[in-house]
Amino acid sequence: MNPIRVVQYGLGPIGQAACKLALTRKNLQVVGAVDIDPAKQGKDLGELLGLGRKTGVVVSGDAAAVFAATRPDVAIHCTSSFLPNITDQLVQILGAGVDVVSSSEELLLPDLQHADLAKRVAQAAENGGATAVGTGVNPGFVMDFVPIVASAVCFDVRSVRCVRVVDAGTRRLPLQKKVGAGLTVAQFEAELATGRFGHIGIRESVAMIGRALALDLDGISHTVEPVLAREERKTRFLTVAKGQVAGIRNIGLGKRRGETVVELDLSMYVGAPDPRDEVHLAGEPSLKLVFEGGVPGDQATAAILVNTIPQVVAAPPGLKTILDIAPPRLLR
Amino acid sequence: MNPIRVVQYGLGPIGQAACKLALTRKNLQVVGAVDIDPAKQGKDLGELLGLGRKTGVVVSGDAAAVFAATRPDVAIHCTSSFLPNITDQLVQILGAGVDVVSSSEELLLPDLQHADLAKRVAQAAENGGATAVGTGVNPGFVMDFVPIVASAVCFDVRSVRCVRVVDAGTRRLPLQKKVGAGLTVAQFEAELATGRFGHIGIRESVAMIGRALALDLDGISHTVEPVLAREERKTRFLTVAKGQVAGIRNIGLGKRRGETVVELDLSMYVGAPDPRDEVHLAGEPSLKLVFEGGVPGDQATAAILVNTIPQVVAAPPGLKTILDIAPPRLLR
Repeated sequence: MNPIRVVQYGLGPIGQAACKLALTRKNLQVVGAVDIDPAKQGKDLGELLGLGRKTGVVVSGDAAAVFAATRPDVAIHCTSSFLPNITDQLVQILGAGVDVVSSSEELLLPDLQHADLAKRVAQAAENGGATAVGTGVNPGFVMDFVPIVASAVCFDVRSVRCVRVVDAGTRRLPLQKKVGAGLTVAQFEAELATGRFGHIGIRESVAMIGRALALDLDGISHTVEPVLAREERKTRFLTVAKGQVAGIRNIGLGKRRGETVVELDLSMYVGAPDPRDEVHLAGEPSLKLVFEGGVPGDQATAAILVNTIPQVVAAPPGLKTILDIAPPRLLR
Repeated sequence: MNPIRVVQYGLGPIGQAACKLALTRKNLQVVGAVDIDPAKQGKDLGELLGLGRKTGVVVSGDAAAVFAATRPDVAIHCTSSFLPNITDQLVQILGAGVDVVSSSEELLLPDLQHADLAKRVAQAAENGGATAVGTGVNPGFVMDFVPIVASAVCFDVRSVRCVRVVDAGTRRLPLQKKVGAGLTVAQFEAELATGRFGHIGIRESVAMIGRALALDLDGISHTVEPVLAREERKTRFLTVAKGQVAGIRNIGLGKRRGETVVELDLSMYVGAPDPRDEVHLAGEPSLKLVFEGGVPGDQATAAILVNTIPQVVAAPPGLKTILDIAPPRLLR
């Protein structure tokens, strides 16, 4: 097949990782790159990504000009988690007839929190004859796609529980900061009150499971709490004293008439033992599925964005979810 | 939505299990049933399936008449493992504009062993505007779909190894007989020579992984050997003396230039410890995924046949594989 023509839209950390990967795929051709940051514009992707070679693709601030000049098939879109921030971008991309694979957590299930914006995006997709899908590793895989697909071998599923444990101590500094490692409890609580903490997309994962398995959820909640270090923990980057915050625990719950039928339990902290992804389906039969060691976060998100491209390009037009299109797999 | 109108085509053990399940789904309406066995024809499905009630659906030997009278959306097709045995059936069903979900192991990847027959079926699907897909739990899920979908979070996969261990002692008598439990080694070897033993579909699973992950396989092989009882084993149905055959081990290999890059290791024997399904991807990153206790076989096959129906009905016409359509999930 001819390579799929790709524009990288958004060159933050996730966008850069996805773009780097896309540049290595023989089935993809990166033909353009867009970012709003003037410091990135005008740079060759090879320079920006530290590849030690020129790619011939220069970052632009003018998406419309890039689409007109390069006629891409698809955009890898990595700009913001939140649908209100990206609706105009998506409308423009789709309106140009370009498909979208996005890392936006809210785009996983866009009508959950923004029904009107989802309608606008869906209309742009129909009008442009293009397809948009939000995906990632979490949300997008370990705590939603995997339990939903595992249910295919069941007669019944009464409840779903996922446990994801990530040892933040083995991860990059921004991730350690993001989970609050090294803060005092008071600092953590103060930052929590500003809305800084908390895993984005956990409500979308709960809701996606609820809808996909027809669990008739009547309530979705999300709690965030600090995990305190029981002893001093050192990472390559920082030290967490005993009693300080080692990281964070997010719990997303889906309830039906007061009963918890979806529980997503996500812990990310320095020194977390036994990192893993567990999926439990209680049903007929009950199933327990474990990714031993867990699915790595940042790398896996870049991978699944790139690996979902052929399925999005092949799908009929519209605003779709990962459950509407063919399943992703390694793309070379 | 309106219930999907279903015909059960083939009422052997798997067909009966799938039909029983379909009858309990509020999103499905079983409108017809076909079987070649005169002893089943004329019976109400309720009687045949032992439901203790009439369903109003009577088993017929005349598929064309059933399609004309009931206008089904889809057939659950469970008649034979082998494409040469089912091609005429599929051509007739698809020609009537009826989609097909089939338990035929060879239909998982029909062009692998029967390129000409696959073309005939594909042409019938195009002409009829209908879709055909082969699926099941193995092949169709644990040793092909699961490793392929797990690769979505990887940058690279160099090799795939799956281990499926089934304790045949906990299963029904036909399964225990099928794996040779209680035979002497000489009896097993004699039966093996007639082609009675060996897991059907393991070549299709190896090939599907090879193609999906672009592993460039240049050879596929399948070996079958007996597993001998190290001590006496009793099941509800039979006794295996020490040194007799407890069951069977199938190994499917996919090679590239002499190197094994796909290994599917399937053991089914009385007394097998630690039943499980393991998936190992060696790559970037490497992943290990385990269904603890394993995915139950017969029940899961009925489930996945029924649970794949909405995705097949929604797919565009053609002869498809499980990788071309939206992923299955529990249907209620």
